[in-house]
Amino acid sequence: MKFYGYFRSSAAFRLRIAMNLKGLDYDFELINLQAGDQSGAAFKKINPQGRVPALDTGSDILVQSLAIIEYLDELHPEPALLPADALGKAKVRGISNIISCDIHPLNNLAVLNYLRDRLGADEAARTEWYQHWVKEGFEGVEAILSESPETGRFCYGDTPGLADICLVPQVFNAQRFDCPLDIYPTISRIFETCMEQPAFADAHPMKQPEAAELA
Amino acid sequence: MKFYGYFRSSAAFRLRIAMNLKGLDYDFELINLQAGDQSGAAFKKINPQGRVPALDTGSDILVQSLAIIEYLDELHPEPALLPADALGKAKVRGISNIISCDIHPLNNLAVLNYLRDRLGADEAARTEWYQHWVKEGFEGVEAILSESPETGRFCYGDTPGLADICLVPQVFNAQRFDCPLDIYPTISRIFETCMEQPAFADAHPMKQPEAAELA
Repeated sequence: MKFYGYFRSSAAFRLRIAMNLKGLDYDFELINLQAGDQSGAAFKKINPQGRVPALDTGSDILVQSLAIIEYLDELHPEPALLPADALGKAKVRGISNIISCDIHPLNNLAVLNYLRDRLGADEAARTEWYQHWVKEGFEGVEAILSESPETGRFCYGDTPGLADICLVPQVFNAQRFDCPLDIYPTISRIFETCMEQPAFADAHPMKQPEAAELA
Repeated sequence: MKFYGYFRSSAAFRLRIAMNLKGLDYDFELINLQAGDQSGAAFKKINPQGRVPALDTGSDILVQSLAIIEYLDELHPEPALLPADALGKAKVRGISNIISCDIHPLNNLAVLNYLRDRLGADEAARTEWYQHWVKEGFEGVEAILSESPETGRFCYGDTPGLADICLVPQVFNAQRFDCPLDIYPTISRIFETCMEQPAFADAHPMKQPEAAELA
């Protein structure tokens, strides 16, 4: 299978972690978001939405990181990225979606560029925007994680799963934008635990082949 | 079970459609987003993120509309809201997430209020913002739906599912913000087909008990 990605995309980072956890091999094609590759005709034929990641399974193109990860989890069930029971799945997907719906999309490159180019927001205003949505979302995630009996070494129990896969790239980007993170002790603890795992550490943006040239 | 919602919330609208499709009964508690109920201490105890919908199952509180809908789909499998095969699920979740991640969160009330109050965006600038993200997302959805052999009367085949549940509230809100929609013939056709179904029509914001007073 072929993975279309970019080292700094949080959504691509999620998919790298998931494929590493499952030990899956893949070909990689760089879609340089800074250069605008995602909006070019060639990539729009692959993913009409013009976003990464996209995954070519050989017969089909799949889009949207969480949809792709759930697909891989069904095809390659070990290690499982979701609990076996419906209630556990709902809790893990709930945390995942606070991040994937209510934090990340507000803070991606396309949005920050819109704020700058069309609303005249200067760097300070853009950073304030970024930090605001991280705070709104992480307050919810921290409260849920700190109160839930299911929280273990990871977001749900003692093995990494979908919620951790969403959490780590968001924390990584929050660090880049100087968001205060020590006010979220559970999130910070789980992030550190994840980064000790090779599947997470190897997926780090700066460890990707294009990082040396593009970072 | 108890459903915490608000008539104009797109995410609550999704959950109403899903519960209607499955014929589920529920108690309802209004969280008045215009009055700020979602940020009050009482509701934050229920959902620390301060968002609707939330679902109290009797033993647990679930958050995030898609996580809740997938939970209900597993507990009450008929009618199924996702295809049985992994590839079909990935395609339906992909369309769903274009809407639930990349359109809706950018255009919800909290974001529009931030643009107005903290970035000084006037009504014209806010409408332009709204229309921009609908266009970015719907171009992708329309291309996928118009090219996919699986598209039928609904987004995937001839029975309504998760992608339709996400599509309908987004079209409804796009209409409110005067987004051009006739340029998306497949989306428009599926929207019309959905609205002929009682499960969708009865979930319409203006048919909710609080609409008469609050609209």
